[in-house]
Amino acid sequence: MKSGEFTRGDIVFQLRAKIVDIETGGMPVISLNEDFAKENDFHNMDRVVVSFNGKSLVAAVDTSEKIVSKEEVGIFEDVWKKLKIKNGDIVEITPVGKPESTKYIRKKMDREELFDKEIRAIVKDIVDEKLTDVEMAAFVAASYMEGLSMSETTSLTRAIVETGGRLKLRKKIIADKHSIGGVPGNRVTMVLVPIIASLGITIPKTSSRAITSPSGTADTMEVLANVSFSTEELTKIVEKTNGCIAWGGAINLAAADDKLIRIRHPLSLDPEGLMLASVMAKKVAVGATHVIFDLPIGEEAKLQSLGEARHLEREFTKLAEKFGIKVETLVTDGNNPIGNGIGPNLEARDVLWLLKNDRRGPLDLRRKSVLLAGKLLELVGYAKEGEGEKIADAQIDNGKAYQKMKEIIEAQGGNPNVNPEDLHVGEFTCDYEAEKYGRITNMSNHALAKIARAAGSPVDKEAGIYIYKKYGSNVKQGEKIFTVYSKSERRIERAIKLMKELNPVTIE
Amino acid sequence: MKSGEFTRGDIVFQLRAKIVDIETGGMPVISLNEDFAKENDFHNMDRVVVSFNGKSLVAAVDTSEKIVSKEEVGIFEDVWKKLKIKNGDIVEITPVGKPESTKYIRKKMDREELFDKEIRAIVKDIVDEKLTDVEMAAFVAASYMEGLSMSETTSLTRAIVETGGRLKLRKKIIADKHSIGGVPGNRVTMVLVPIIASLGITIPKTSSRAITSPSGTADTMEVLANVSFSTEELTKIVEKTNGCIAWGGAINLAAADDKLIRIRHPLSLDPEGLMLASVMAKKVAVGATHVIFDLPIGEEAKLQSLGEARHLEREFTKLAEKFGIKVETLVTDGNNPIGNGIGPNLEARDVLWLLKNDRRGPLDLRRKSVLLAGKLLELVGYAKEGEGEKIADAQIDNGKAYQKMKEIIEAQGGNPNVNPEDLHVGEFTCDYEAEKYGRITNMSNHALAKIARAAGSPVDKEAGIYIYKKYGSNVKQGEKIFTVYSKSERRIERAIKLMKELNPVTIE
Repeated sequence: MKSGEFTRGDIVFQLRAKIVDIETGGMPVISLNEDFAKENDFHNMDRVVVSFNGKSLVAAVDTSEKIVSKEEVGIFEDVWKKLKIKNGDIVEITPVGKPESTKYIRKKMDREELFDKEIRAIVKDIVDEKLTDVEMAAFVAASYMEGLSMSETTSLTRAIVETGGRLKLRKKIIADKHSIGGVPGNRVTMVLVPIIASLGITIPKTSSRAITSPSGTADTMEVLANVSFSTEELTKIVEKTNGCIAWGGAINLAAADDKLIRIRHPLSLDPEGLMLASVMAKKVAVGATHVIFDLPIGEEAKLQSLGEARHLEREFTKLAEKFGIKVETLVTDGNNPIGNGIGPNLEARDVLWLLKNDRRGPLDLRRKSVLLAGKLLELVGYAKEGEGEKIADAQIDNGKAYQKMKEIIEAQGGNPNVNPEDLHVGEFTCDYEAEKYGRITNMSNHALAKIARAAGSPVDKEAGIYIYKKYGSNVKQGEKIFTVYSKSERRIERAIKLMKELNPVTIE
Repeated sequence: MKSGEFTRGDIVFQLRAKIVDIETGGMPVISLNEDFAKENDFHNMDRVVVSFNGKSLVAAVDTSEKIVSKEEVGIFEDVWKKLKIKNGDIVEITPVGKPESTKYIRKKMDREELFDKEIRAIVKDIVDEKLTDVEMAAFVAASYMEGLSMSETTSLTRAIVETGGRLKLRKKIIADKHSIGGVPGNRVTMVLVPIIASLGITIPKTSSRAITSPSGTADTMEVLANVSFSTEELTKIVEKTNGCIAWGGAINLAAADDKLIRIRHPLSLDPEGLMLASVMAKKVAVGATHVIFDLPIGEEAKLQSLGEARHLEREFTKLAEKFGIKVETLVTDGNNPIGNGIGPNLEARDVLWLLKNDRRGPLDLRRKSVLLAGKLLELVGYAKEGEGEKIADAQIDNGKAYQKMKEIIEAQGGNPNVNPEDLHVGEFTCDYEAEKYGRITNMSNHALAKIARAAGSPVDKEAGIYIYKKYGSNVKQGEKIFTVYSKSERRIERAIKLMKELNPVTIE
């Protein structure tokens, strides 16, 4: 069945601007009086060109508005800022059709494969904020339900790269690393990058901030140095030190992806094709030639079975090939937190202790970082097969990884001589003690993440959890298993409440 | 892959209300300061319970707002009206999880069939405005892509009936009629209802208004009488006259459906399952026992092939059976306008001329109405097979259908003695003349609809098109084929522009 769509020639309406001091986010919005809309055939979410003083943009119509009269148009912040419209200005409104990209979204909903130019049109319109939330939701839903073919995913990756920022480093080998995530702690990047860079290999690592986790790599690195840089600044840092640990959001590597998260997050949808393209686009954008992927599997990790991991491994490898990138994937244990600290300061402290060969450096974090760094060294051809780990481990032992970390911290505007003991933890604390004698048979990633977030992590850098006893340990009744920290009394109370409700540790 | 979802115990935030004089439509919305949101783990479109003075409701969070401070909450019209909140009032905000129905939407996206209780939960939350536009878009997209099973469609129909208004008429036989639409003119309902009602058969007909067409039956009937009635009022009208021609929207027969149109219209999506359920729910809600379906096929109608029509016929029949409703379907020609007038006054004039046996009454409209009325008489058992049409036609000839129409108009508060000549047409006119000698081989429904809408139909009751020569007629060069009418000079100019662009008539 067809629904009629109407174009309406070049009708121009002149309306008096009424400034509305609200930023709508996403596609720009204007408000039309309901009766005016009815009489002139405007519907909710229709598109119009808004013109003023030689400038124009496309906005979506909101007809539920009652505060504008029939002679007025409500102009929201996104629009009046761009077009420099003031209260009372006469603004021209012209109806326009939907962009071509909406046809391609419909095509995808009809389960047809999209051509390269169609995917590019969709991505361009997402970045240019020419699609409404409802249209983007349809695209996310269709990508989730129908999946994207490898050819579509390749087009999507390329389109994301084209519409985002890019690093231009003149190096033959550029290494990179990506973890699928879902494991608290797990600050492998902050150990791996200095190891690799200390061996003269370029590794321009960009990371994300936490969305639903207690801390992202960018949040933790921020404790030690700045993480927001322009492309030019980041290029200089990497040229100087071989490596960086920066926030990817600041250099806008995947602008389209950031816009889609606005829709994916409320829908709790993470369509595989969009995820693959988003990850790979960031690698292509930094010019990576060799990438190691960490795929943690666990009941409460993002990947729950070896089958899922193997599938993703194949997809990443195929997609990387299209861009001439060599990849190695490593399936790891995602059942338990890695490292002892969870939360920005607590994790940064772990990393510094580890790099300084302090006995408080968490062994599991060291093992995993060395394992991944070793594989990466083998992948780029620096180490022979089976010898990467040894070389990586030596860089920690001989202090060169720590030395490199100090250089990176300094290049990123931080204090290279920061003492791990000076990274404060919140003054309000609460211990979680073993309720009986036994062996820890499970620690819930989800529960620990929720407790750490309730305590204030990652916004409160001092909030989080420090774990003394991990999976497999034997504990006595009343023995401390972990401590929760917070700067706020109110927040520690919330964390305690959750701690009691969620049963984060199983002892058998 | 899983995305984490977090519940957060019963945290309560007390914030100062800042009234925002904007009605958002759909789910209620509140605005939180971006920094406050970040610190307290609120994301865009998260849900919160808003409580004030013993009353509460669930609203979606908008975090793009900059005008509220960290101590304030922006309260939009939908919220402050319901909770009676004034500027400066202290309001309580508590985060809550998503409703269960979002899980079922996800389940549908995972291509699983939904149980009755799951569909009901979705429909209830749609009606109660507990779902965001993005979530409803996901449901519409999933229903479109995956389709609904007959069992799901049945559940959906029942759920729509349960959440909407209902007519309670104590009659053994209640007749009804539905047309899939997409054909301009086509005011069969306004001829068929008086025929059926004049024979003592109950026919409580509700119709829609135009969304993208030049006029809906409700828009045209509104020229002659009121069309908005409460369930009680409509019951009284039908008890008195056996029939009515009312606007379905006023008695809220399919509340869920009306809310979904907000999403379906901008997406130009009309998933079959939603359409079937929406149509059937309206029949169940008026207590229909026998329904005739008109399925017009045409290149520019909603149904484009006999195959599509046959498929829909089967689906309607199966679905109707579940509710004990007997149906008959009739596939008709949807290639050309039915009747001579297009637009409210012009169509109402056609109908009155026809019922009054005036020679200006359009023959094609009479033929189609009599055909459908005849089949309906056979379906309810009033006429033997093959004899319905004759009986129906006689009711026009003998003036009884017109007499009944006058009763219905009077019962609906109109003037029963209105003269068709008194239904004015717009003073600004333009003729479309044959550009050459030949035979009319096509009239474009889409083009005529666009021209009539551009002229102002249906808001301007006097606007529209009057057709002199139809499909198959021979015309001389310069002979008038149709005239466009409008009350506004500006609008007639637009209509003329479209008339030139769209090539509404093909002569060969």
